[in-house]
Amino acid sequence: MKYFFGPRSWPQMKADIDAAGHKEVDSIDQAQVYINTSSRAEDVPEMPANIEFVQHCFTGVNQMIEGGVLTDTSVPWCNAAGAFAKPVAESALGLLLSQAHHHKRFALEATWDGAREIDESQAWLYTPNGHAPKRVAIFGAGGIGQELISMLAPFGVHITAVNRSGREVPGADVSLALSDATSVWSEADFIVLIMPLTEETIGLVDAAKFKAMKKSAILINVGRGKLVNTDDLVEALRTGEIAGAGLEVVDPEPLPDDHPLWGMKNCTMTPHMGASWQVADFHLGEIFNANAAAWEEGKPLPTLIDPKAGY
Amino acid sequence: MKYFFGPRSWPQMKADIDAAGHKEVDSIDQAQVYINTSSRAEDVPEMPANIEFVQHCFTGVNQMIEGGVLTDTSVPWCNAAGAFAKPVAESALGLLLSQAHHHKRFALEATWDGAREIDESQAWLYTPNGHAPKRVAIFGAGGIGQELISMLAPFGVHITAVNRSGREVPGADVSLALSDATSVWSEADFIVLIMPLTEETIGLVDAAKFKAMKKSAILINVGRGKLVNTDDLVEALRTGEIAGAGLEVVDPEPLPDDHPLWGMKNCTMTPHMGASWQVADFHLGEIFNANAAAWEEGKPLPTLIDPKAGY
Repeated sequence: MKYFFGPRSWPQMKADIDAAGHKEVDSIDQAQVYINTSSRAEDVPEMPANIEFVQHCFTGVNQMIEGGVLTDTSVPWCNAAGAFAKPVAESALGLLLSQAHHHKRFALEATWDGAREIDESQAWLYTPNGHAPKRVAIFGAGGIGQELISMLAPFGVHITAVNRSGREVPGADVSLALSDATSVWSEADFIVLIMPLTEETIGLVDAAKFKAMKKSAILINVGRGKLVNTDDLVEALRTGEIAGAGLEVVDPEPLPDDHPLWGMKNCTMTPHMGASWQVADFHLGEIFNANAAAWEEGKPLPTLIDPKAGY
Repeated sequence: MKYFFGPRSWPQMKADIDAAGHKEVDSIDQAQVYINTSSRAEDVPEMPANIEFVQHCFTGVNQMIEGGVLTDTSVPWCNAAGAFAKPVAESALGLLLSQAHHHKRFALEATWDGAREIDESQAWLYTPNGHAPKRVAIFGAGGIGQELISMLAPFGVHITAVNRSGREVPGADVSLALSDATSVWSEADFIVLIMPLTEETIGLVDAAKFKAMKKSAILINVGRGKLVNTDDLVEALRTGEIAGAGLEVVDPEPLPDDHPLWGMKNCTMTPHMGASWQVADFHLGEIFNANAAAWEEGKPLPTLIDPKAGY
């Protein structure tokens, strides 16, 4: 298909889609597909009638919906669902282990003096002899969750997968619908948020949820910052209502320099880079090629967005 | 068997060995086995003639050999080999991911301003489409290495296992003897040190090795601090000869408060707590029971130390 990159071209993606026989054109007016490489709605032009569908190069589309460029009446949009499964799962596991073993705390204390207390308060993902397996709850167990489940398998943990419908997730010990997951918050040792931001999930993790969690619980967010009420999180980390957090996403982004989370020894962070363009560039070719092939054959687009659902 | 704990009793281990029919006695003079729960040679008493073997509760015995309490002519000593396989492997993977994704750097910079550079310079363990698998070299691939290989499997990496003899290590793509591993230093993306400290391995990783490594290489040490020349490491991290290090052990321990490693954004550390007594307590019962059963049946002790080899 004839495609146009906006606002900028991605080199690896271009190579991968050209190899599949697609062709870049010089202007949006000659293109069949608009490939959107910006995560800001204001960068997205109005689509001329020749554009048959939009390939968005990220997974989350809430900015596009809020910005009014992706609507019920716009051309079909596809996202990058599945492209970031491995990197975001890797990001989640890294944050979990780093926070469990107090890497940030030891870095900020910069002394061996607290070593014994750091040791005694560290959490383990694997199961020591005579202990019950650690319970990991994964909220939003799609492609990323599947990869994370594979990465967690060697640790022998118990996995509860929570998704919208409660459909069974391979590799999970228990699969639940979000509406049936009430007891999960209080039973989990590690809670991993991977879900999209929708009306149902915005602010999902708030003071009441932190109160329900174990004091030893560690919360990981690799989904969207607004899934968590940040003020409530700061309070829960400060008062010891939970043991720690690992955040790849946060509300707001960028986090202001004077924000209390920076100085908190039990809050490990990365700057929303598990699904960055450097990573995406290597994976979007495959996604585009699958969508383009389906479109040409009149089949359903594999990563089509439902603007009403928000993902 | 009748056993005596010195200098202190470990509660979980005691429960696990009592359950197997062994019995704690009030003094070393009534015991058949001395269970040593100290890692300092000066805490170890002279063994009376009634002691048949010593159960050491840690893996490394170099302090005991240097301190002159474990010699060619002492009673047999057994160590904790195998007990720490999972926790030390977990520690290694955590340090690797934390360093690869710049958790310490982001924590010390405490600003979102450098996010783009942090993203662009992060390393991935998984294989992005169109890339060759990352090469992980594991030096000292015994029980811990085996567990680490399991934990690395979901990431699709290429694993080179290096050990004394070159015997084939299950799950590794290549197994090599240390003497044949010259080219490994320059080919590896991640180098993990797990080996014991012996005359052959002390100071193994020095300026020449850092010079041979890729500039993007990350070194993980969960073996012994003295495997690495610390001054050379500081220099390699400062000049960018390698990208980063993750250290669970370091020379010296405790690391002095004014040591340059504390402030280095590309050096992630934990205070030698992957094989701490809290962890050991849950695993040593099993080790002791296996050694005691073998002793009573006149079979070779499963974790017998060879004082000449040093492990």
